[in-house]
Amino acid sequence: MPDLTRRDALKLAAAALAPLSAHALPADSPAIPRYEVFEAALRGPSTGNPFVEVTLAATVSLGHRTVQIDGFYDGEGTYKLRFMPDTEGAWIYTTQSNAPALANRTGAFLCSAPNPGVHGPVSVRNTYHFAHADGTPFFPFGTTCYAWIHQPEPLQQQTLRTLATSPFNKIRMCVFPKHYEYNHNEPALYPFAGTLGHFDFTRPNPAFFAHLERRLADLRALNIEADLILFHPYDDPAKWGFASMPAASDDLYLRYLLARLSAYRNLWWSLANEFDLMRAKSTQDFDRLFHLVEQHDPVAHLRSIHYSKTLYDYAHPWVTHASLQTIDFDRAPDYRNAWQKPICFDEIQYEGNLNKRWGNISGDELTRRFWLCLIQGCYATHGETMLPPDATLDEATTPTLWWSHGGELHGTSPARIAFLRRLVETTASASESNPGLTPSPDPYYLNATVGNARMPHQILYSFDLHQPLWYEFPLPAGTWTAELLDALEGTTTPIPGAHTGHPRLRLPARPYAALRFTRTL
Amino acid sequence: MPDLTRRDALKLAAAALAPLSAHALPADSPAIPRYEVFEAALRGPSTGNPFVEVTLAATVSLGHRTVQIDGFYDGEGTYKLRFMPDTEGAWIYTTQSNAPALANRTGAFLCSAPNPGVHGPVSVRNTYHFAHADGTPFFPFGTTCYAWIHQPEPLQQQTLRTLATSPFNKIRMCVFPKHYEYNHNEPALYPFAGTLGHFDFTRPNPAFFAHLERRLADLRALNIEADLILFHPYDDPAKWGFASMPAASDDLYLRYLLARLSAYRNLWWSLANEFDLMRAKSTQDFDRLFHLVEQHDPVAHLRSIHYSKTLYDYAHPWVTHASLQTIDFDRAPDYRNAWQKPICFDEIQYEGNLNKRWGNISGDELTRRFWLCLIQGCYATHGETMLPPDATLDEATTPTLWWSHGGELHGTSPARIAFLRRLVETTASASESNPGLTPSPDPYYLNATVGNARMPHQILYSFDLHQPLWYEFPLPAGTWTAELLDALEGTTTPIPGAHTGHPRLRLPARPYAALRFTRTL
Repeated sequence: MPDLTRRDALKLAAAALAPLSAHALPADSPAIPRYEVFEAALRGPSTGNPFVEVTLAATVSLGHRTVQIDGFYDGEGTYKLRFMPDTEGAWIYTTQSNAPALANRTGAFLCSAPNPGVHGPVSVRNTYHFAHADGTPFFPFGTTCYAWIHQPEPLQQQTLRTLATSPFNKIRMCVFPKHYEYNHNEPALYPFAGTLGHFDFTRPNPAFFAHLERRLADLRALNIEADLILFHPYDDPAKWGFASMPAASDDLYLRYLLARLSAYRNLWWSLANEFDLMRAKSTQDFDRLFHLVEQHDPVAHLRSIHYSKTLYDYAHPWVTHASLQTIDFDRAPDYRNAWQKPICFDEIQYEGNLNKRWGNISGDELTRRFWLCLIQGCYATHGETMLPPDATLDEATTPTLWWSHGGELHGTSPARIAFLRRLVETTASASESNPGLTPSPDPYYLNATVGNARMPHQILYSFDLHQPLWYEFPLPAGTWTAELLDALEGTTTPIPGAHTGHPRLRLPARPYAALRFTRTL
Repeated sequence: MPDLTRRDALKLAAAALAPLSAHALPADSPAIPRYEVFEAALRGPSTGNPFVEVTLAATVSLGHRTVQIDGFYDGEGTYKLRFMPDTEGAWIYTTQSNAPALANRTGAFLCSAPNPGVHGPVSVRNTYHFAHADGTPFFPFGTTCYAWIHQPEPLQQQTLRTLATSPFNKIRMCVFPKHYEYNHNEPALYPFAGTLGHFDFTRPNPAFFAHLERRLADLRALNIEADLILFHPYDDPAKWGFASMPAASDDLYLRYLLARLSAYRNLWWSLANEFDLMRAKSTQDFDRLFHLVEQHDPVAHLRSIHYSKTLYDYAHPWVTHASLQTIDFDRAPDYRNAWQKPICFDEIQYEGNLNKRWGNISGDELTRRFWLCLIQGCYATHGETMLPPDATLDEATTPTLWWSHGGELHGTSPARIAFLRRLVETTASASESNPGLTPSPDPYYLNATVGNARMPHQILYSFDLHQPLWYEFPLPAGTWTAELLDALEGTTTPIPGAHTGHPRLRLPARPYAALRFTRTL
């Protein structure tokens, strides 16, 4: 794209005190729909190590507003700037660089209306919940495919096809490849230049990141958020060493990644998986990395970190939500009260049959755990680790396990999670947007309300393993319809009548029953 | 029974320094098998209030050994002494009383060999376990029928018939009648003289206690331990007032009961059910009552107390075992370590379908909880609260619920508990008695060993909700046979071969699987 002439730039700057309109821009300025990626490519030096020796940044402005972004080196003398506009209008930019060829370059683009169905990046809403930038509620129903982008291309395509029809709208996935039980294949691409045992952490590999970006774009097209794991302990120290780079290399990697990826609207940052298992890093290292993300992500994507045994302090202001590995669901109210943030139970063991206890619960049990999280006003993440019945008894093999490789889903929980997601997403009242579930203090059975605390719109009861023949529901004032739900069968059966006061309703007396009341008056 | 002549008594006293033989006793002295009840009836005053005005005690001796026992007034001028001899030989006794007719009365009996199958009262063995007085291990598999002795006689007989074929060898039951949801019928007999609203707590009702004793004897004939609950909060204060008697009345009631019942070998004392819900009593009151039991029970039956929310301090030396109401099974190791006593999870919710969450879990889930307790070296107690499918929606009715009334069992857990009991009872090795299950620190799946800690005889694995397709078992040195168990189906399937080292065994990949290894070499 050609630079603006000096006169164009002066014209735009003069107009900066009033909203710009498109006619102020040069006629060939590109139009970028809101929440999509504007990208400018610049030619610059290719000698030496441009990744560390050449700086590139830009000031991007719309009227009064100025956003500072970082550019990055994409190899072969090409530098790029990426920016996700969140406001419609005429944006201009000016570059800064220590390379004369890249300094004081200017440009402009017009941000137009978003494409249909695009709602923008997700952030925290209503303390414990999430919404897209345009206010559309987002209820995370996540899954886990740690190393799917490091598998052969046909498997990656199969994963995308599976995701397209799955109930999942978020996926936990790693930047770095994974070396672990059942994960022994080398990826096609590595994040740094070099060869096994000899990677140069000062030279990110543009081809690797371009591949990662293609997958982020694929997910974006499916309306799936990428909960991108920036560091993890599942490293091969002899061959890779990505878990034990020097701090300066961590910072360089992270700033490179932030410059390349932040403009993708469907990103959440997960600073690490099982951060406390990363022996070469201290908690203070992760504090520092969090700050880097805060400073260099102009979109302010959600930020959290996942642990094995020792919790990170989710009270820190730079953490937007908790990302837990625990099955102590009874503590959900404590977590909400302690942190006043959304609580994601991101690792609650996986449906499957591995020899490991974290990877061999039934679909019934994983479904039950999803309900326990949701009904307590929190969120849950799925995973599947299902060996074929004739698998050999050896974790040195590399079967295709969804949890790590992607591929196909075999379990019974996804269909039940789909049912729960539909339930949660269809709780909006006519008069207000869907606020999410608020756990109610009924002392006998877990239940949650939707809507105004004093006059909720809906009430959702989960009887979990309890199987009462009947129950007296202490309804708030109003008139209510009732539907009997089966969390496993995925069925919804209306209970006839208009219910008020403390109705005693007969229930099916089997586990996993649930009930939904909706206010009619 | 006639008193000894003075000469007989002198003869016996002279022989007291050497073991007595039967020929030293009067020819008409009764023979009492070991662990049965010797009873002597005496005539005494019937005027005034003999329950409080007349004292009666006795010194019972065998050779060097002397036991002090209390007598009691049985009404209509009859006083009784009861004693359970625990040692074979010639026993003599001499009474003490403030009534001349009851003072300095003497008598004798011969304690003979126990009846077949009688092993004596149960006490603590191996820190965390139990055994009868003759050393026979006792593994409590208890059930709960709080108010069964207060129901119509045909129902009590049905309860006994059900117990005769059930897997339960212990029953939690109350002395006092019960006033509670689903429990609104008045009993035929009350523990004190008087009428509803006007009971005289200074006059125990001998007919009531005689009835209780018949039921204790019925249970004894079935080899069932009565875990007798001495106080409870489920009172009708207007009609009964048994939960809020003055301290002096509590003491009188308790001493009367101890004098009457202690000689029943199949007794455990549960000082209270949900003691912390008894508003009229403090924890110190229960401390005092524990001390009374310690002082006036010559058999030293097991002693504990059950709570609702606030634990009693089970570390007290006068508490023989913990009696818990909790489903926090993860804390079992903490409880064992803290108290170094047997841990009984006595209320872990009941199989059933009540509207209350404590009374509506499935048979699968109650079975699962039994396994969780046992595999962690603790014990569990069953209960059933199953309304018929066409029950009215009203807890003011009095259906027949096993948990309270007895009757019949309808649930699926008893058959599974029977399977678990057989498993636990058949773990003895050829060379040593059955020591009970010791939880093993394997970090992945709950398992317990039987026998010498360094060289166990058996190892029992429970996979609970986990469903691995295979697992590598870290066996101790030795050669082992293996059996696959299904906790729900109650099946045992040998896995062919002799297993050593760290065998990888294929498992059925469904919940509730278990596995038992038995050492062969």
